[in-house]
Amino acid sequence: MTHFHQTDEIAVNEILPGFAGRFIHTAELTVGHFQIKAGSILPEHHHPQEQISNLIAGRFEMTVNGETKVCEAGGVVTIPPNAVHSGRALTDCYIIDVFRPAREDYK
Amino acid sequence: MTHFHQTDEIAVNEILPGFAGRFIHTAELTVGHFQIKAGSILPEHHHPQEQISNLIAGRFEMTVNGETKVCEAGGVVTIPPNAVHSGRALTDCYIIDVFRPAREDYK
Repeated sequence: MTHFHQTDEIAVNEILPGFAGRFIHTAELTVGHFQIKAGSILPEHHHPQEQISNLIAGRFEMTVNGETKVCEAGGVVTIPPNAVHSGRALTDCYIIDVFRPAREDYK
Repeated sequence: MTHFHQTDEIAVNEILPGFAGRFIHTAELTVGHFQIKAGSILPEHHHPQEQISNLIAGRFEMTVNGETKVCEAGGVVTIPPNAVHSGRALTDCYIIDVFRPAREDYK
């Protein structure tokens, strides 16, 4: 299997309205490249995977365990396993999310 | 501990000449945000961590297990544990690398 991937050649999985995800999986990790439309809502939820969200472009308001912050380019959010989190896109956004272990539900 | 981090507030660790890294660690993962100067060389090496490299900006020529490709924005490279890899920056680059398990040597 090749080691090289191009996200624009990966089929979009719109996991929530406005959240267009393209996913790369290894046995233990999932990386999701998300193009998010302004105004899109991430409802409060949690999952057993730890998550690290990397803001590449745009402004995204995130809440983790009751702590809220508006994130911009260069912002990184660390979300522990099972931590309740939610958010909303204040502008169009590009976010790269890392999940450990892999998101079987996104495969 | 806060869940929110801003890479431009993290001290730079220049792990190799021209590779300015800013690192976020959890117990099991390391994420490195690298600003790389054009012409910088990543010598051939390997490490026990699996790595996923996400090209955000620039052009970076990468070789993994003998396979070589020029990566651009939207490119993702999956590097298995202990895989030999090397590269060079053809332009200034911004790359986000994910390592599992965490890079204790970068803490």
